[in-house]
Amino acid sequence: MTLASMVDQALPLGSGEAVIAVDVGGTDTKAALFDEAGRMLGLSRTPTPRRGDGTALAVVHRVEELRLQFAADFPSIHPRAVGLLVPGVVDDDAGIGVLSTNLHWSNVPFAQLTKEHIHLPTTFSHDVRAAGEAEFRLGAARPFGTVVVLVIGTGIAGSLFIDSRAHTGGGYAGEIGHSIVDPAGPLCGCGARGCLETIASAGAIVRRYEQRTGTPVTGAREVLARAEAGDKAATAIWSEALDALALSIAQLAAVLAPEAVVIGGGLAQAGDRLFVPLRERVDALLSFHRRPRIVPASIGENAGLLGGALRARDLVR
Amino acid sequence: MTLASMVDQALPLGSGEAVIAVDVGGTDTKAALFDEAGRMLGLSRTPTPRRGDGTALAVVHRVEELRLQFAADFPSIHPRAVGLLVPGVVDDDAGIGVLSTNLHWSNVPFAQLTKEHIHLPTTFSHDVRAAGEAEFRLGAARPFGTVVVLVIGTGIAGSLFIDSRAHTGGGYAGEIGHSIVDPAGPLCGCGARGCLETIASAGAIVRRYEQRTGTPVTGAREVLARAEAGDKAATAIWSEALDALALSIAQLAAVLAPEAVVIGGGLAQAGDRLFVPLRERVDALLSFHRRPRIVPASIGENAGLLGGALRARDLVR
Repeated sequence: MTLASMVDQALPLGSGEAVIAVDVGGTDTKAALFDEAGRMLGLSRTPTPRRGDGTALAVVHRVEELRLQFAADFPSIHPRAVGLLVPGVVDDDAGIGVLSTNLHWSNVPFAQLTKEHIHLPTTFSHDVRAAGEAEFRLGAARPFGTVVVLVIGTGIAGSLFIDSRAHTGGGYAGEIGHSIVDPAGPLCGCGARGCLETIASAGAIVRRYEQRTGTPVTGAREVLARAEAGDKAATAIWSEALDALALSIAQLAAVLAPEAVVIGGGLAQAGDRLFVPLRERVDALLSFHRRPRIVPASIGENAGLLGGALRARDLVR
Repeated sequence: MTLASMVDQALPLGSGEAVIAVDVGGTDTKAALFDEAGRMLGLSRTPTPRRGDGTALAVVHRVEELRLQFAADFPSIHPRAVGLLVPGVVDDDAGIGVLSTNLHWSNVPFAQLTKEHIHLPTTFSHDVRAAGEAEFRLGAARPFGTVVVLVIGTGIAGSLFIDSRAHTGGGYAGEIGHSIVDPAGPLCGCGARGCLETIASAGAIVRRYEQRTGTPVTGAREVLARAEAGDKAATAIWSEALDALALSIAQLAAVLAPEAVVIGGGLAQAGDRLFVPLRERVDALLSFHRRPRIVPASIGENAGLLGGALRARDLVR
């Protein structure tokens, strides 16, 4: 490995303008400053402000506070733009937060609010699509033109890159967690029934195990460990999750024919214990279809921030 | 209605170069000459030549024979190009017939064969995608940027238009008929199990009714008529077909968020008896998703030929 490639791995963003990225989650808001070398500085995680109907505006004010804080903490670095990411249904092109059930907003004109309240040019986009874009431009999805990036954690979300372009569907595309795998399945938080994430998310694996056994567990990782130790309920739930995930990936293969499906998020940390049986199951379902490579994400937990930084840099390039 | 729009409806292709379109099916080959006004002339349907390993070459020779026949029959019309369409897995960009189980070929370099044996510039593409392109450029899919065109007949095939561009996935995309809706479902001709077309195609509706009752029927139309007359087996099979189709459309909504799904082919001739209950079922499955309009195709049974003519005109434009 050359020194240059080692540096690239440590600083995947690469050189460019200094920018700020803010990734607003349902619970916490993560923020970081990226310098011109692509170094991530001053990473912080603070509770997302919640003000009922005023939450969206409070979020925008928080971004401006964070900007001022970075200016105070890193006076020699002069960021040129901000990349703001929020969850829910987001229309990047129109700059509108269409819906966040979690943060209780609908149809918020974020592009306008950021222009009024943040003293730097600010891009506005979707947390998972930005994380997917980081994988697509800098990570495991980079070798592919048509590729789906899935994040499997509490829920399941995805982003689509089709013939080398992001497809957003007005903010509604890529919701693979809410693709129905079993219309008679569990009721989903979204109101539909049998969505993939009610069976195959890390959150669902925990919930279903606790419901079936009455035994609390610390996470999907513990359910997997119990399955490996021969626990029948854990084995069944883990296997059902793999089957549902394999079915959704097989459906993607038939419809979109992606070259690869890249999987990140908490569940992907299971490594080969997830990827090996998942690949086997997808393989068994398909016939003439183009078989996607199924590979782990490479950027890690800060993919959202890196995606936000990429978008911010695009704005001032 | 103005005279101009009446003419447009009668001649949806519009004016341009004269071209030949040849749509090679598993049973018959359809061919037509289109003049500069867009009139379809000399429409013919002949059995597709079958010569075992030599079928692909025989098909190319047949196209040249058809060209000579059109020249003899319509000496005043001088076509500038040919649009050749074949079934199976087709890589339009590479000009390769990747696979046709029906016509027993794999990896045929059609672009090269047509160059050698047809005395006009010839485009080569996929029958269903060409028909979809006709709907997208001239028909019911025209108002939409992201839209799925389904053809439901003996089988089910689809074509995808994403952000106003056709997505082919190297010839493997749009195979919605081979998206698995029930991994424990009937074995499909493709080798997989529970593909949508094993339950919801017109062919499957007939086959399943005959298997369940031992009563031969003339087509899906008759099964629908029997369902409307109170036949329990017919009602169940028709309902299962609608459920499977609604589920696949709901999955498309979650993943691609198309503005519309356009449905053509034999089953679409059922009109409101298909579209009304299908829309209700899709609606009942979805929650926050973008709800696609579900509309009938408008070009009709010669959509493939029109798509072939469009491609041929593109070649010499």
